Order: sequence, then structure tokens, then C-alpha cells
Amino acid sequence: MNAIGVDVGGTKIAAAVVSPGGEILNEVRYPTQAVPPNRLLESIGYAINEAGEGFETGGACVAVPGLVMSPENKVIFAPNLHEIEGIRLDEELGRSTGLPVTVENDANAAAWGEFHYGAGKDVEHLVFVTLGTGVGGGVITHGVLLRGLQGAGGELGHIVMEPGGPLCGCGNEGCLEALASGTAIQRRAREVANRHPGSALGRLAIERQILGEDVTRLAQEEDEAALRVLRETGTWLGIGLAGFVNIFNPEIVAVGGGASQAGEMLLEPAREEMYRKARSPSRDLVEIMEATLGPTSGVLGAAALAQDGEGRYVLEPAGEAS
Amino acid sequence: MNAIGVDVGGTKIAAAVVSPGGEILNEVRYPTQAVPPNRLLESIGYAINEAGEGFETGGACVAVPGLVMSPENKVIFAPNLHEIEGIRLDEELGRSTGLPVTVENDANAAAWGEFHYGAGKDVEHLVFVTLGTGVGGGVITHGVLLRGLQGAGGELGHIVMEPGGPLCGCGNEGCLEALASGTAIQRRAREVANRHPGSALGRLAIERQILGEDVTRLAQEEDEAALRVLRETGTWLGIGLAGFVNIFNPEIVAVGGGASQAGEMLLEPAREEMYRKARSPSRDLVEIMEATLGPTSGVLGAAALAQDGEGRYVLEPAGEAS
Repeated sequence: MNAIGVDVGGTKIAAAVVSPGGEILNEVRYPTQAVPPNRLLESIGYAINEAGEGFETGGACVAVPGLVMSPENKVIFAPNLHEIEGIRLDEELGRSTGLPVTVENDANAAAWGEFHYGAGKDVEHLVFVTLGTGVGGGVITHGVLLRGLQGAGGELGHIVMEPGGPLCGCGNEGCLEALASGTAIQRRAREVANRHPGSALGRLAIERQILGEDVTRLAQEEDEAALRVLRETGTWLGIGLAGFVNIFNPEIVAVGGGASQAGEMLLEPAREEMYRKARSPSRDLVEIMEATLGPTSGVLGAAALAQDGEGRYVLEPAGEAS
Repeated sequence: MNAIGVDVGGTKIAAAVVSPGGEILNEVRYPTQAVPPNRLLESIGYAINEAGEGFETGGACVAVPGLVMSPENKVIFAPNLHEIEGIRLDEELGRSTGLPVTVENDANAAAWGEFHYGAGKDVEHLVFVTLGTGVGGGVITHGVLLRGLQGAGGELGHIVMEPGGPLCGCGNEGCLEALASGTAIQRRAREVANRHPGSALGRLAIERQILGEDVTRLAQEEDEAALRVLRETGTWLGIGLAGFVNIFNPEIVAVGGGASQAGEMLLEPAREEMYRKARSPSRDLVEIMEATLGPTSGVLGAAALAQDGEGRYVLEPAGEAS
């Protein structure tokens, strides 16, 4: 049956009705800044109802960027989305939509999307890493979404790879996120620009703040400084991926998120470093590739979770639709 | 039905008949050095037959310290046990024993033993780390033994935690194994002894080579230098465990192997560092404890794998018993 996947982000709420085959039948998007204060929960309910109007749907799953306790369908920590922390979203949204609703971490949902419809659709063992402001992760092993006891599993961004290294948003130093996220690319770009003021990157840094996409564009134009930023980032990414390859012996490692738009300029050094650092046979067959669904992986994965009951902790909605 | 678990190590081959309830009904041990050259495979077969004589058994699983391709029941790399590399052990041992035989990595088998009968017997999510000459690992997530595509998964000892750090047996630098194994304890003990020649550890180092058990004993006698060796090792262990806790959100992390005999002197700093470095909620509920089965985890886990068909790739024996 059709299901509704919802992707709640810092800038938008997207809700889509998705067929079991993965076709998006209808989609609505609300910019988050248009949501009145303290109306986030209500807006998610509206989005589900509006997207689903006129469609028969069996349930909804809401993907949220933050720490999610899946057995309780609670978000326990979500930067910028504090309003929905600590609430039983299955109950609240069940009441306002009349549907069984579950909650999932956004990277886990996106991983499940890539597993069902994208880079991992033909495999049983997928590691999904998303490089944005932070580094998110989701793992499917033996066909099972790795949630762990509380649903907080698959948190790949905070393995420590360089004690004493750059400060991470989590408070530790030298996490994968601090070394290979979009934010890390920007920090490294500033450093390299300072050391190479004559490079295109260095000249741009004098004019304005460098964004991740600037680095990608300048690298495409073969600016050596920009290429170096991506190479260094890719190498750190590769060290992290080597660990995941050793741990999971996966068929595919799919890399998504904004920073993955640097494509092979990032993935090639990552692949090389992974091969240097991981062990045989795991390193030999694994394919490191770009994720294929792009920004729709969240709604597609969330819908797939709602569809196939992999949103394991589905409860009956606490109330009827109003 | 009863099954036979075999643990092949550098010093001994142990084969045990184990009841479904985890009772060892019979056990034989051969010291590996008593095995004539090129007779390792034959000796494993003998051990299975001798242990099983007079018992009805449904199959056997052989745990081997090395890289195992479980779908093919092949050991592809085993230091000091090169003789059995690249052979279809299910076929060879099936022929000599008349039983269905599978092969598993020894740390995976031990993890399965702790999961069935030991530290993890009441949980669904267990990370098992064994600290010996190297660092081995095995993971059960959502009740599934994490083998990965080729059976090489659960390789926890070679995540890189300090690029440029001490050389690891695998050829990389700064792996968990290079920082927190029994070998790492010995290396660190030499370093600390050199810096503190007046300590009990320093005085012993002048007399002879320091062993891991010396460090534990001197630490029990409150030698500050020995305590520091265990504290530093525990801290590195904790950094690694923090990553596993983030990734797996497990209920239990069980630490086994020879070096775990240092007990809380190693586990307490590991627990503290894990708590500093891992994220909530995963770090809050997880229990870091000593494995409970000791050296029998290997035969018990291997037998459990043979018993419950979790040795998934069981083939019919290629020939009849001779």
C-alpha cells in the first residue's frame, strides 16, 4: 500500500505519498521558516494530511535530523527542532492524521531509501554516509536496518579518528564529522587559502566566505588549492570508511549529502585510502560510490519504512482523524 | 541436538561436544605443537571424531583465528595456520568426520558463545572485543551475527584511531589493535619502564622481558607505573569502544581475551573514556563488562553456531564417514 514519507530538515518539511514501487505520487513542501513558532508539530501533521489527501495510505514515517529513540517514537535531541524533542510523535501525529506514524533518524531513513530504491537496491549489506553540515550514517547489514537497542545506532559520524584533532560539534575532537563533513571542507578551505593566497581559492577567500560549492567549482576548474582541500577531505573520509568496511564487510558504501557533489574528486582519494587501510577480503569487493537518490532519499526511505513494517515499532494511532 | 565446537588456536586444538543448553559433555585438546607438520587438517578431523565418539551430534563448527570467508567455509588468511588456508574445510572435514561442518572466525564464534551462554545471553545487541596478541571482535545486532557479505565482518581491531601512531601487525599505523592489545600493553610497559626505572615495573624490565601478566600483577600491587600502563591502554580501548557504542547502540560490550584479566584496572578507564566520547542515549544504558565464559567461549560459540543453524552456510558433507 502507499505510504507517506516525511523529511523534516532545517530549511523545509517535505511530505510525499510513495507507492510500494518507489514512485512519488504527490509531494508537498513547506519552508521551515514559514512555520510559525511552536507550530512545527502541527505543520508536520498538516503536511502529512495535505500530501495524503485523495490517496489511500497505510501509514507515515517521519525522518528527523537528530537522535531518535525508535522504540518510543521520540526525538530526544534535534538541533534547531527542539520543539519536537521528548514528545511521543506517534501519538501526537497519530491523533492529527489518523494514521500509524513512526519516527526515524533522517540518515537511517535515507539509508533505507538507498537500500530499497537506490545505490543499495541489489545488495544485503549497505553502508550509507551523508556528508552535509555534519556526517550522518545508516547501515543495513544482512538486510536489517541497524538501529540498536534504542534506535540510536548507525551513528557513524562520531568515531574518533584523530584524538586532539579539530573540535567537533559534539564536543569531542577529531571525529569523522570534524574531518570530513561539509563544515570540515569549509574549515580546511580557509586554512589552505591562507597558505596559498595566490590560488583561486586564496583570492576568493579575500572577497568572501568560501562555501563548499565554491571548493567543488574551483576544483573543477583545476585550482590546485581547491583540489588539495578535496583530496585531504577524501583521505580522511577514506580512513573512516576503512573502519566501516572492516566492521561491516559491505557490498556498497554509498556517499550522499551536499558535499558528495564533489563526486570523484572526493571519492577517488577516499577509495584509495580505504583500500590502503582496510583488510582483505572486505576491501576487495566493496564498491564506494555516490548515493543515487539525492535529496529524495529521505522521503523515499521513510515511506519504505512505513510501507514494509520495518518501522518496527508502529503503534496504532492514539486517536482518530479530526 | 548436541553439536561439536572446535577452537583452533596457536597453541591448541580444542573440540567439545556441547548440549543445546550449553553443557560441555566431552572435550579433547591437542597441543598444536604435537601436530606433525602438514597434519593440521587431519588433526582437526581427529579431534572432532574423538570428542564426538559415543555421542549423537548434528554437526560441527570450526573456529579459526584468521580471515574466514563463511559462505565458502574457507580460511583465507590465518597466521601460523597457513596449511588450512584456501581449502574448502566443509568438504575436507565433512569427508573425514561424516558431519556437516562449517567454519567461522574465532572472535565471531566467541561472540556468539557470549551471546548464547555468557555476558550477552539476555540481550539482542552485543559487541564482543577480545584483547590478546591482537584485538578481535564480534558483533550481534538485532540478534544477528554480523558477518557481512563474505563473512569477514566484525573485524573491530583495525579501525584507525591514531594515524601515524604505533605500527600494527596489519601494516597500518594506530589501529585499535596497535593501541589496546596485549602486545600494546607490553610495548607501553617497556616505554613506561624506561621512563620510570625506579618503579617495580622499571626494575623488572632490567631483569627480563615484561609480560602482560606482570603488568597486571604489579598493578594489583599498586605499582604506579604498571597502573599507568593499564590506564593508558584502557583509555585507548575506551576511544574505540565509544565508536562501537555510537555505531551499534548495544546493550552490552563484553571484553574478553588474556589482557582482560586486568579487569577493572583496564575497564574502568575504558568505561570513563567511552562515556566522554560516545553520544547519548547510546552511552547511557550500555554496560561495559568482562566477558563471562573465558577461554571456553570459542568451543561453546562454535557449537551453538552448528546447533542452531546460524552456521548459515551449512552444506551436506561431501562424503560419508570413513
